[in-house]
Amino acid sequence: MALEGTQLIGQQAIRGSQSPIAAVNPATGKTLEPSWPGGTREDVDKACRLAWEAFDRYRETGLEERARFLETCADEIEAIGDELIERAVAESGLAEGRITGERGRTCNQLRLFARVVRDGEWLDVRVDPALPDRSPMPRADHRQRHVALGPVAVFGASNFPLAFSVAGGDTASALAAGCPVVAKAHPAHPGTSELVGRAIQRAVGKCGLPEGVFSLLYDSGFEVGQALVSDARIKAVGFTGSRKGGHALWQIAQQRDEPIPFYAEMSSINPVFALPKALEGQGEDLGRAFINSLNLGAGQFCTNPGLLIAEKGPALDRFVQTAAEALRDTSAQTMLTPGIHEAYGQSMSRLAGNSKVREIARGPQGSGPHTCQPALFQTTAQDFLADRSLQEEVFGATSLVIECNDTTEMQQVAEQLEGQLTASLQMEEADYDQARRLLPILERKAGRILANGWPTGVEVCDAMVHGGPYPSTSDSRTTSVGTAAIYRFLRPVCYQNIPDALQPEATREANPLGLNRLVDGKREG
Amino acid sequence: MALEGTQLIGQQAIRGSQSPIAAVNPATGKTLEPSWPGGTREDVDKACRLAWEAFDRYRETGLEERARFLETCADEIEAIGDELIERAVAESGLAEGRITGERGRTCNQLRLFARVVRDGEWLDVRVDPALPDRSPMPRADHRQRHVALGPVAVFGASNFPLAFSVAGGDTASALAAGCPVVAKAHPAHPGTSELVGRAIQRAVGKCGLPEGVFSLLYDSGFEVGQALVSDARIKAVGFTGSRKGGHALWQIAQQRDEPIPFYAEMSSINPVFALPKALEGQGEDLGRAFINSLNLGAGQFCTNPGLLIAEKGPALDRFVQTAAEALRDTSAQTMLTPGIHEAYGQSMSRLAGNSKVREIARGPQGSGPHTCQPALFQTTAQDFLADRSLQEEVFGATSLVIECNDTTEMQQVAEQLEGQLTASLQMEEADYDQARRLLPILERKAGRILANGWPTGVEVCDAMVHGGPYPSTSDSRTTSVGTAAIYRFLRPVCYQNIPDALQPEATREANPLGLNRLVDGKREG
Repeated sequence: MALEGTQLIGQQAIRGSQSPIAAVNPATGKTLEPSWPGGTREDVDKACRLAWEAFDRYRETGLEERARFLETCADEIEAIGDELIERAVAESGLAEGRITGERGRTCNQLRLFARVVRDGEWLDVRVDPALPDRSPMPRADHRQRHVALGPVAVFGASNFPLAFSVAGGDTASALAAGCPVVAKAHPAHPGTSELVGRAIQRAVGKCGLPEGVFSLLYDSGFEVGQALVSDARIKAVGFTGSRKGGHALWQIAQQRDEPIPFYAEMSSINPVFALPKALEGQGEDLGRAFINSLNLGAGQFCTNPGLLIAEKGPALDRFVQTAAEALRDTSAQTMLTPGIHEAYGQSMSRLAGNSKVREIARGPQGSGPHTCQPALFQTTAQDFLADRSLQEEVFGATSLVIECNDTTEMQQVAEQLEGQLTASLQMEEADYDQARRLLPILERKAGRILANGWPTGVEVCDAMVHGGPYPSTSDSRTTSVGTAAIYRFLRPVCYQNIPDALQPEATREANPLGLNRLVDGKREG
Repeated sequence: MALEGTQLIGQQAIRGSQSPIAAVNPATGKTLEPSWPGGTREDVDKACRLAWEAFDRYRETGLEERARFLETCADEIEAIGDELIERAVAESGLAEGRITGERGRTCNQLRLFARVVRDGEWLDVRVDPALPDRSPMPRADHRQRHVALGPVAVFGASNFPLAFSVAGGDTASALAAGCPVVAKAHPAHPGTSELVGRAIQRAVGKCGLPEGVFSLLYDSGFEVGQALVSDARIKAVGFTGSRKGGHALWQIAQQRDEPIPFYAEMSSINPVFALPKALEGQGEDLGRAFINSLNLGAGQFCTNPGLLIAEKGPALDRFVQTAAEALRDTSAQTMLTPGIHEAYGQSMSRLAGNSKVREIARGPQGSGPHTCQPALFQTTAQDFLADRSLQEEVFGATSLVIECNDTTEMQQVAEQLEGQLTASLQMEEADYDQARRLLPILERKAGRILANGWPTGVEVCDAMVHGGPYPSTSDSRTTSVGTAAIYRFLRPVCYQNIPDALQPEATREANPLGLNRLVDGKREG
């Protein structure tokens, strides 16, 4: 299939008219063909109009019909075959194995949401039957279900060109909720975006859904994205990217005539607390595992371990020494884009230039044009507590070891952290008392707390929380990965004394969908 | 019990130092004793500090302990006895029967949340056990529960001095979620607030909870409220009031270093669609019932029916005539405050002065100083569609009849409505086809859709939605009444590979709390 360099608006391919976007292969520095002229406000208007026209029909698709659509999206993405893998590798610099795995994750995620749609728990149906004889006042019949918010704008991330992009978690959960999606392609992987966008477009056609269920726009600058968030027909936004970009769009979402929910995943440094006994008993293994996690995907994970906190002493010294050796043994990997590579160099230099920070080791520089040189730095808890700039995310394979004098300092560091996606504990049973003191703090700081593992790697499951207090995300009440992500795009509606013939299927007396419902305060079925 | 004119900060009574607030009995115009000097930023700081200190302990209270606390709050409010009723009647101008009913509702609500806490469904526990043999990658153990957001600021409403005030739905649901509450007393009912505040303060003491679980502040102007929303230790806000007041505080909540969820219920005109057959068959009954709902509590309900939409013709004429007669027969009721009475007069005059609007009838003027003269106006659908100012809420017993030429116009009116708390349909079976065309529109516009009833009266139950799209509330994904209100104050946390000994009780393998959990995608227990 030849890439056409076009936007996808409903079932049409529409060429943009603004300055063209082309991908650069970061491993070679070479510009890739073709290019995508950016869209206009008129394109945004058309995509939003189609999405709005599709909304009332799409949000009332039956559970089976909607689930089949999500499965068809997965089938169509798989059907692209090697071309998708090759293009995504070329556009991202990520290894083929990683991209193949990410495609599996993306398709599994769509199929998992198909299961979620069929189960229908997301409808959260509640039935409080009429109590005509209640005194002093009879009770009317009340039934609640959840309905889709409306068309959703999705801004994909650079670092997961499949799993957090055009058909990633935001799109999958919005479509599962019954919301049409207008996606904006990330400029770093326009070809991958077109391939995946066409797969969804085909799935819409094959399933006989209204064409506005999905559109894909390209943006030469910021105009398309801003117009999209401003459009009155867009009712929620999913965004993964930088804090700066997230804030700019969030502000637009809040200042519209009708403010809308804005779900941004923005930045996180994912502190890892290595507790004394674990450090003593497994310091060297931990040192190697730490560097392995740090350097995964050239450190370009939102869950990259950017801070390691431990008590000073010989155990920490051994850990640091092993980590330094492991770091020097890594192979430098290509970063996602020339811009990200440049920003990484600047952030790392800033850290290296901080007089309170000392360099432990650097990895190899690498020979490609945009390789990430991993680096490890160290500072003391007191210096860390005194300088909030040390909490700024370095996007890439750099981490900072915080040396604490004692347990109390470790807790102080935890208490001063900004909101995070994850917080990790390396511990043995003899560390549990200290863990018990840290856990209540970490629960306030992070969406996911993990033990004896590393934060990179986010399981797509019911219990996952990929979210967390600000600034890691804009809304700590939600997750962007896992089945609970669907709740971001729903709102409750109560039906009072509506005749059964007019009730939605979900709330009908006979429970024709066989849902797990809360009836008069008790679980039914 | 003598009112002391003090704030309640933790277990202390602390006198403010700013200009004093005194209630006016709107029925007599007389100022009531005592007065409450307003609080300072230091008072806000102290209340927030105590709330923060209480948070980690309070959010981990056992389900039974927390439920008992909510029940004790209810017991203590009831134990105040007649003094509470008398004071609330004097401060609000509302009838004794209404206030007695509202006290019952307030206490029942606290007890309902005690049931909710015990059930534990709000923890939404999800367990995805480890799959060590999964290929290509093993799965770690993941468990999710919900935790409290943090201390919550509550701004009560003038129109429900008990049920939407110091111990109203926001406070009850925040306390149920495990959040300490710092309430700001509404200046219209400072004495009622102190009485109820002292009841909660006593309940905190009796239950041996940390004192910061509850504080009550008074505000001479806006400084205390603004400082409260700005305070870094406040993690969410519940507000019921005007659109202007809501927006001012919402902006503060968004512009903090850490933006926080802001739940405001602001304004709604609660359209009622009287469909042709119902109007033909029951026009006169509907006319009387309409006026009854309109004049309830002098029209000062957030769910007051401020719009009635119907097709023109003899049936509508009869309906209007009956309504006009019923309106003239009403007795004028006292409004909540001199300020609300004055604003009502201005809003009504603005409507009366609109050249496209014609007056149908006015009720009696009443003899008290602040009585509400009910009024009914009429306009055409075309004029309504052309003038958005006709959608502005008139807080009081005024409504506007919209005369439509046909079904299509009725749908156009529905489509142009702003977000609402409620939308109602008066219909018979022969109207179902038309109802089917309206329902998808109304689902996008309102949080609650009711048939053959009137929107005033909000049942406190599992299925209730007292919420709706902007501008009726700031967050259509939520409800401020009913058990689902608890979800506003919670966020999910995922525990990955955390040893069972360190898991919260809710997520432990043995399920010691006997919760309804989602285990490996299936419901347990």
